[in-house]
Amino acid sequence: MAVTLKDVARLAGVSVKTVSNVVNGYAFVKPENRRRVEEALATTGYRPNLGARNLRRGRTGFLALMVPELNIPYFGELAGLVLTAAQKRGWAVLIEQTQGTRDRERDTLASLGPHLVDGALVHPEALEAADFPDPSGGIPLVMLGEHAVDVPIDRVAIDNVLAARTAVRHLAGLGRRRIAAIGLNAARGTSDQRMAGYRAALAERGLSYEDELVAPAEKYHRADGAAAMRALLALPTPPDAVFCFNDLLAIGALRAATECGLRIPEDVAIAGFDNNEESAFCTPTLTTIAPDKTALAEAAIDLVCRRIAGEASAPGQYIQTPFALKVRESTGG
Amino acid sequence: MAVTLKDVARLAGVSVKTVSNVVNGYAFVKPENRRRVEEALATTGYRPNLGARNLRRGRTGFLALMVPELNIPYFGELAGLVLTAAQKRGWAVLIEQTQGTRDRERDTLASLGPHLVDGALVHPEALEAADFPDPSGGIPLVMLGEHAVDVPIDRVAIDNVLAARTAVRHLAGLGRRRIAAIGLNAARGTSDQRMAGYRAALAERGLSYEDELVAPAEKYHRADGAAAMRALLALPTPPDAVFCFNDLLAIGALRAATECGLRIPEDVAIAGFDNNEESAFCTPTLTTIAPDKTALAEAAIDLVCRRIAGEASAPGQYIQTPFALKVRESTGG
Repeated sequence: MAVTLKDVARLAGVSVKTVSNVVNGYAFVKPENRRRVEEALATTGYRPNLGARNLRRGRTGFLALMVPELNIPYFGELAGLVLTAAQKRGWAVLIEQTQGTRDRERDTLASLGPHLVDGALVHPEALEAADFPDPSGGIPLVMLGEHAVDVPIDRVAIDNVLAARTAVRHLAGLGRRRIAAIGLNAARGTSDQRMAGYRAALAERGLSYEDELVAPAEKYHRADGAAAMRALLALPTPPDAVFCFNDLLAIGALRAATECGLRIPEDVAIAGFDNNEESAFCTPTLTTIAPDKTALAEAAIDLVCRRIAGEASAPGQYIQTPFALKVRESTGG
Repeated sequence: MAVTLKDVARLAGVSVKTVSNVVNGYAFVKPENRRRVEEALATTGYRPNLGARNLRRGRTGFLALMVPELNIPYFGELAGLVLTAAQKRGWAVLIEQTQGTRDRERDTLASLGPHLVDGALVHPEALEAADFPDPSGGIPLVMLGEHAVDVPIDRVAIDNVLAARTAVRHLAGLGRRRIAAIGLNAARGTSDQRMAGYRAALAERGLSYEDELVAPAEKYHRADGAAAMRALLALPTPPDAVFCFNDLLAIGALRAATECGLRIPEDVAIAGFDNNEESAFCTPTLTTIAPDKTALAEAAIDLVCRRIAGEASAPGQYIQTPFALKVRESTGG
């Protein structure tokens, strides 16, 4: 039998009006009440009657989520969290994959409009400011992730430069002196910010930047990390530590180092970025930067709902969500 | 600039009509021409003008894909392939997560209708025949995967019983006599069929079935596999091989065995099911059943498009897609 607002209110011990305020994404709900309603929504699996609500408001009831590839676990995990956060508020989500190329990202962005969706979360890798539609004529957009574009559009992300710097500081703190990086790629926003953090940490610890220690990667898949690691290990003086720009590259690097008979972390320490669930179960387990993905998904859905409701303040808001360094076996944890 | 049908036809060296037939999912296109058009569609990133096409036909332009969790790599990979196959034909895809519970699956199915989508691919874990809407009044549905329900609805899957049997035969062929299974779960269709294959292979090889060697798992996540493996290793006579009902369970089992200081495969051989990309990069690499996920996604999209176009024959078609056993280090490959 369908769950009603009344059922949710009874379970949460609040009024139907309060449940309605939470479901519709209105502000001014006491944090404690919001928490109780969200728990009750999750427990009951409540789904608003979208048809009726949308007809009343002239809306589609859909949000779009644009990501490079669902096949990359970070995006699979993030998409799952975005769907959960959206469903709690009664939105259905269209997912569009772009492979992270500027052309596909621009075409996808151009195809989104009020005929299709009421708002969109976009995780670009390569978009530039000129690719953005006129914000006054379009739907509310919220950008996710580190690829910053100079347009007055809301964005939710962790501090990527500081996160990369934190990982490399950790490697330097272990006494490593030849710290390599895997993931250089001029076509990806991810690369710029993680490179900046890498260089800043080297400078801060008095280590020189060496071109030969920076390995490019095209797709940030496991095979790219393995190939880059094999190239680094073939150097006359190989690195004693490697910072990889995502966990998939690090998993590939771990595998290549293991196949070469190296001990990790004794011979080479390895750190990743993303905290995919895989990183806590591989052998050795992987030290990585753990962005708070739940906070990121919730903040982005909250922001786009408030924009759709016409409730948010000036556009171009930047919300920074937290991250942590998880020290595991691959660096001696 | 937007890519047109004409651009695709020129690149593929075929007529515009042929491109249109492929994009609209009509049958009777020569396989060679279909291949050339699909390559040209992928190269150009062509997207049909959905708005115009749908208005003309009274359609929404959307398909729905219902899966348990995008956070499970098998579903992340499969969803990515379904989106790619759908986009080639001009459909946008709504994704719905159910956590694999019967209630959530039933509610999701009930919410899908012609007001929302033109057709749906559903990957159920727990649905029963009574949960299906009357096929005459609803939208075309195609079921994905091993959970069979006795309703006249199209389904695309590999032969799960044979696949499980193949994995267990392989373990028995290595001379292992105490072959355990991880993944028993009465609420999941996956479990029934993989158990049937496990029991059939044991019987065929003259090995007795022992209850204590069959470990339950609730969510099929890595942590469930690790917990189940620890329980099996605590038995008075632990197993010398383990067949896990998915790769995540196997990755957890690998980790637990490694933490206990066991050598894999010498002390215990481990096999999984799904061939997630992770299984080729973990240490040791994982022997697993590799379903042809691309074939599965393409066949399902093809079938739902033909149903929507009113072209398919009798309902309740069952398409079996291929699988292979990948032998890797975890069983001595």
